[in-house]
Amino acid sequence: MEKITYHSWKEEYKSPFGAVKIGSDIQFQLDCQLDGIETIYLIIHKDFGESFQIEMTPINQIRFKTVFTTSNGSGLYFYHFKIEYQENSHVRTIYYGNNQCNLGGKGIVYYEKEDIKQYQLTSYLFDDPAPGWYQNGVAYQLFVDRFYNGNENGEIKECKKNSFIYATQEDLPLYIKNEAGEIIRWEFFGGNLLGIIKKLPYLVELGITILYLNPIFEARSNHKYDTADFMKIDPMFGDEAQFRELIAQSEKVGIKIILDGVFNHVGADSRYFNQFDTYPSLGAYQSLESPYKDWFIFNHFPTDFRSWWGIKDLPTLNKENKKVKEFIYANDESVIQYWSKMGIGGWRIDVADELSDDFLLGIRRGMDKSAADLVLIGEVWEDATNKIAYGERRHYLEGGIMHGVMNYPFRDIIIRLLDNLTTTQEAVFMCMNLKENYPPEALKNNLNNIGSHDTTRIFTALQSNSEKVKQALVLLFVLPGVPCIYYGDEVGVEGGMDPDNRRQYPWGNENKDTQSVVKQLIALRKNQKALVEGSFYSFSTHYLFMVLRYLSDEEYVLVLINSTEKEQEFKPKDILSDHHFDYKSFFKRQAIENQIISAQGIKIVKSSQY
Amino acid sequence: MEKITYHSWKEEYKSPFGAVKIGSDIQFQLDCQLDGIETIYLIIHKDFGESFQIEMTPINQIRFKTVFTTSNGSGLYFYHFKIEYQENSHVRTIYYGNNQCNLGGKGIVYYEKEDIKQYQLTSYLFDDPAPGWYQNGVAYQLFVDRFYNGNENGEIKECKKNSFIYATQEDLPLYIKNEAGEIIRWEFFGGNLLGIIKKLPYLVELGITILYLNPIFEARSNHKYDTADFMKIDPMFGDEAQFRELIAQSEKVGIKIILDGVFNHVGADSRYFNQFDTYPSLGAYQSLESPYKDWFIFNHFPTDFRSWWGIKDLPTLNKENKKVKEFIYANDESVIQYWSKMGIGGWRIDVADELSDDFLLGIRRGMDKSAADLVLIGEVWEDATNKIAYGERRHYLEGGIMHGVMNYPFRDIIIRLLDNLTTTQEAVFMCMNLKENYPPEALKNNLNNIGSHDTTRIFTALQSNSEKVKQALVLLFVLPGVPCIYYGDEVGVEGGMDPDNRRQYPWGNENKDTQSVVKQLIALRKNQKALVEGSFYSFSTHYLFMVLRYLSDEEYVLVLINSTEKEQEFKPKDILSDHHFDYKSFFKRQAIENQIISAQGIKIVKSSQY
Repeated sequence: MEKITYHSWKEEYKSPFGAVKIGSDIQFQLDCQLDGIETIYLIIHKDFGESFQIEMTPINQIRFKTVFTTSNGSGLYFYHFKIEYQENSHVRTIYYGNNQCNLGGKGIVYYEKEDIKQYQLTSYLFDDPAPGWYQNGVAYQLFVDRFYNGNENGEIKECKKNSFIYATQEDLPLYIKNEAGEIIRWEFFGGNLLGIIKKLPYLVELGITILYLNPIFEARSNHKYDTADFMKIDPMFGDEAQFRELIAQSEKVGIKIILDGVFNHVGADSRYFNQFDTYPSLGAYQSLESPYKDWFIFNHFPTDFRSWWGIKDLPTLNKENKKVKEFIYANDESVIQYWSKMGIGGWRIDVADELSDDFLLGIRRGMDKSAADLVLIGEVWEDATNKIAYGERRHYLEGGIMHGVMNYPFRDIIIRLLDNLTTTQEAVFMCMNLKENYPPEALKNNLNNIGSHDTTRIFTALQSNSEKVKQALVLLFVLPGVPCIYYGDEVGVEGGMDPDNRRQYPWGNENKDTQSVVKQLIALRKNQKALVEGSFYSFSTHYLFMVLRYLSDEEYVLVLINSTEKEQEFKPKDILSDHHFDYKSFFKRQAIENQIISAQGIKIVKSSQY
Repeated sequence: MEKITYHSWKEEYKSPFGAVKIGSDIQFQLDCQLDGIETIYLIIHKDFGESFQIEMTPINQIRFKTVFTTSNGSGLYFYHFKIEYQENSHVRTIYYGNNQCNLGGKGIVYYEKEDIKQYQLTSYLFDDPAPGWYQNGVAYQLFVDRFYNGNENGEIKECKKNSFIYATQEDLPLYIKNEAGEIIRWEFFGGNLLGIIKKLPYLVELGITILYLNPIFEARSNHKYDTADFMKIDPMFGDEAQFRELIAQSEKVGIKIILDGVFNHVGADSRYFNQFDTYPSLGAYQSLESPYKDWFIFNHFPTDFRSWWGIKDLPTLNKENKKVKEFIYANDESVIQYWSKMGIGGWRIDVADELSDDFLLGIRRGMDKSAADLVLIGEVWEDATNKIAYGERRHYLEGGIMHGVMNYPFRDIIIRLLDNLTTTQEAVFMCMNLKENYPPEALKNNLNNIGSHDTTRIFTALQSNSEKVKQALVLLFVLPGVPCIYYGDEVGVEGGMDPDNRRQYPWGNENKDTQSVVKQLIALRKNQKALVEGSFYSFSTHYLFMVLRYLSDEEYVLVLINSTEKEQEFKPKDILSDHHFDYKSFFKRQAIENQIISAQGIKIVKSSQY
C-alpha cells in the first residue's frame, strides 16, 4: 500500500486527460496518507520558465486538490508535487514526480530535489485537424524509382550520365562507393510517374487513398533528396504534364498525392549551387556574383560551406535568407505555392527538425493560401511534442504549423513488442505516453508507419515471420493516426537498412497472403469509424497486448495480440488496469469472456452492430 | 679505337644474322688488335647446359674465326669470347661479351668472368609461318561488350542477375568494388555478336581482315576471362547460331575471326567449379564426387584451392590432368577442336606463360587437326624467345607450338621513343635486339599492338597528342608483324588502365582524322608487299628514327620519324651506322637527299615503282 498516489492518466487525479488547449483549467488531485501533513504543493513551470508553487487544498483526509490554468503561449509545462509533513517534530519535505521512464501515469516519490523527473503537460493553441480525406485515408509511400517503369518495353528515358541501371528487376540495391565510402555513381531501376499512373488500379484495388511520394523533383540521385531544380519533375521520372496527369487520374479514383518537400538543403549539383557546371545558371559555388550566393553559408568561398551532416553533396540552404523564404513558400510562384495549386493533397517535410518553427509556419501559410484542405506532415523521429532540436523546443504540433508527423515511435513500440524486447505492459505505457503528450487531433493526424525508406523493412525487422508481420499490420491499422504502407511491405518485400530497403517492387512475385491481410485491414478501417475517430486505449495482461478504439459500446474495435510463441488464455480479470477506462465493466457489458488466443495470434473483436 | 671488335648484327662477325635453324653452321669472327695474343676462344653453352670452349683460328693479323654448328634440340645458346694474351711475360685472360643492356650488336670487354653478359643465339626447329591470310592481314581487337549492341532499340537481352548496365553509352567504365577492393558486381554496356555483324561494313571500309575477339564464352564478368562454359557463347553476347552467322558474314567480306582461349583458369561461377550453385552440374567446389574434382588443385577442400594470382574468383585448371587436356584440346569435341572446326581463323592464348609448352603443343595439334590454315598466338608480354616462366625457359616460337605472340615489346619501344623517354639510337638497338632474337617467321607472325584491353590506350599514353598517335600508328604498320588495332584507337578513344581502356566505342562521335590515317596505313600495307615480306631495318640519326622495310631497291618502304618538337634536317651522312645494311649506299642509289622533317613529323618514302 503506497502512501502517496497520483496517476496522470486517471481523470480522478488529472482532468482533463492529456494535452490541453491554452487557457484550459486543469484539476490536479493527489492522495497522501502520510501522518502530519503540513502542506502539499503543485510545482509547475512553463518550459524553460520560472517555477510556480501552488498550494493544494485538502478536500478530505487524504485528498488534495488544485486547479491550474494554462496561459502564456502554447508549449509544454512540467510539474511535480512537493509534500511537507511533520516527523519527529521536524518538517520533512519529499516530492512526487514522474516515473523513472518518464512515461507519465503513476509516479514515484523522490527524496532529493535534484532527482525529480517531471510530468509533461502539453498545452496547445488550438485543435488543428487535418482534412477529412486525410484522417480517414490509408496512405502508401512510394519510392518512385523502385515502383514501376511505365514506359513501353521498359525503356528508360533521360538516363543520367555516369549512372547505372540495374540489370534485372530482382537485383538487390547497392550503393556504389569509392574507397572513402562516398557514393560515386547512382543506380536506377527506372520507375517513373507513368508507372504509377499505370498501377493506380492496383492501388485502388488495395484500397489506398493517399499516395506519399518520395521526392520527385530533378536531382542526380535515385532518392532525390539532393534537389537540383525545385520547379521541375525529374526527367527520368517524367515531366510536369505527366505529373498533372497523375494528379488528375488519382483524383478520379479518390487518391490524393502528398509530395516530399526537401527544403533544408539542395544538391551540390543543382541550379542553385551548380558546383559541377551542369546548369546554365550562375550557381553559388561558381561565383560571388551568383544570385544564389546568399542562399548558402560559406565559411570560406567556395569550398567550405555548410552542408547537411557535413555531406558536401548536400549544401544547406540559408533559411534565414529572405529570398530563400520567398522562393520556397512566400511568393505566389514559390515552390510550395506552385505545386500546392496543382491539386496535390499536401506535403511531407523532410528533416523538419532542421527548419525553424518560423520557416515551417511559412510553409503552412504558403500551402493554405494556395488551396484548401491540404495536409502538412513533418519528418520527426521522436515524440514530436517534446523534441528539442538545436537547443530549441519545437512547437510543431501546437496548432497552425504541422498537422502531424511521421510516427516512428509507434513503429518502435510495435517492433519491440512483437520481438518481445519489451513487456506488454511497457508497450502499453509507451502508447499511453504518446496519447498523453500529443494534442488529440495531432495524434489522429500522424502518418503512422511500420517501415519507410529510412528503416529496415518490417519483414526483415521481424525475421521474415509472416505471423508477426500480420500483427504489425493490424497494430498499424488500429493505432490512432493514418496508416501508411511502405510500397512492397504489403507483398512481403524484405530489406535491411538503405539501400536494401529500396528494392524494386516485385511485380509478378508478390506475397499474396500478406497482400490479402492488408486489403482486409484497409476495408476494416473504411467500415469502422471507431478506427479513425474512436478514443484510443491500450492495455495488457501479462502476455497479451490490446488496443481498443472506442466510440461507444455500439461502435468499437478491440484487438488482442499474442506476441508469444505459446497460446495464451485471455481473461478480462487479468487485465493490468492502470488506466482511465473501466475495462472490466466494458468486457462485462460486451459479454467478452475468457478465450484462447493462439500462439502469435490476433483476435479482432468488433461491436455487434458492425 | 677499340682493340677488340665483335658485332653480332654484322655478317662480317656473325653469319648468318640472328636466329638459326637447328643444325645450321654459324660463322663467328672476332677482330683483336692486342699484342701477344695466345688463344681466342668462343665460349658457348646451350641454355642451362655445359659450356664448350672452341678455339678460334687466326685468319690474318687481327681476325679470328670459328664455325659452330647448332644441334641438340632447339632453344637458346649463349656465348662470349675469351682472349688469352701475353703481357709483361704473364698470360692474361680477358673476355668479350654482350653490352650492358643485353641488346646484342656491339659488345664490351670484361675483365672478370662473373661479370660477363652473354650474347643470345636463338636456335629453332623449323620455320613456322602463319597462314598467308594472317601474315598479310590487318587485325582489329574488339572487347565485345564495348563495341556495339546490335539488338533492336538497343535492348539488352539475357542480363545477368545482380549486375549493372551503363546508363549512357558515354559513361566511363567503373569497377564496382567492396571495401576490400574486390569487384562485387559486373557492369555492361551491352555490346554483342549481332552488333559486330551489323558493323562488319565499317570494319571492311576501314580495311580490317582479322578480328581478334576478347573472350566470348559464357562468363559472369564483362571481360569473360572467367569462363563459365567453354562450349557456350555468352547469352548476353548471343548464341552459337549468331556466332556461326558472324563467321559466315565475316568470311564473305574477307575477315577471319581469332578467338581468345582462356585455359589456365575458369570462373569460380562456372559449370566446372560451380561455387555458387549456378549450374546444374556437380562442380568441383561442391563435392568430392564431382566429375571435375581433379580438374582443380585443392590444398584443402573446398575453400583452399589454387587460383590465378590468388584471385579466388579464378580457380586454376589442373593442366596436368588427362581429362582437362582431353577436354581442352585432345578430344574431337574438345574446346579447341569444336570451335576450330567452325571456321574460325585461330586462337590467341591467354596467359600463355601459365601453360606448359606441352599443353600449348597439344593446343596447336588439336587446332591443326581441326582445320587448315589456322593461327595460334600467345599472350606473352616480354621478348618471347628468352622468357623464363616458373623457372622454365619457354619454347613458344621455335617451331610447331605458337606462330607468334602479342608483341608488347614493340609497343614499349614506340611509346618510349615518342615520349622521348629513350634516344632514337636506343630504340634502334631494342628493335634490332628483337629482330636478332626472334626466328624470322615468328617476327612476321607476331600480333603487334600499340594498346590492348590490358594497357593504357595509345591516345592517353601519348598525352592525347594526335601527331604522336599518328607516328605510333605509322610505326605499328611498318614494324614487322601483323598490326592489330584496339577497337576505338582508330577514332581517338582515350583511356587509362582498365577499366578505363574498355570504354564504349564512340559511335557518332569518332575522331575522323585519326580514322583517316588508319585507313591510309591499311591501304599502304595492302599495296606494299615490302611491309609484310620486306627485310626489317631500323636506324637513326641523333634526332630521327627510321624504319626500312626492304625487298629490293624497287620494293621498299622507308619511314622517318621526328619525335622531337623541333623540325630536324635529315642527312644520310648523319646516320649512326652500326648495322648489317649499307644505308649510305642505299640513300645514294635512291637519290634520297637532305631534307627537313617537321616537328613531330612523319616522312614515308616508297620505292619509285609503287
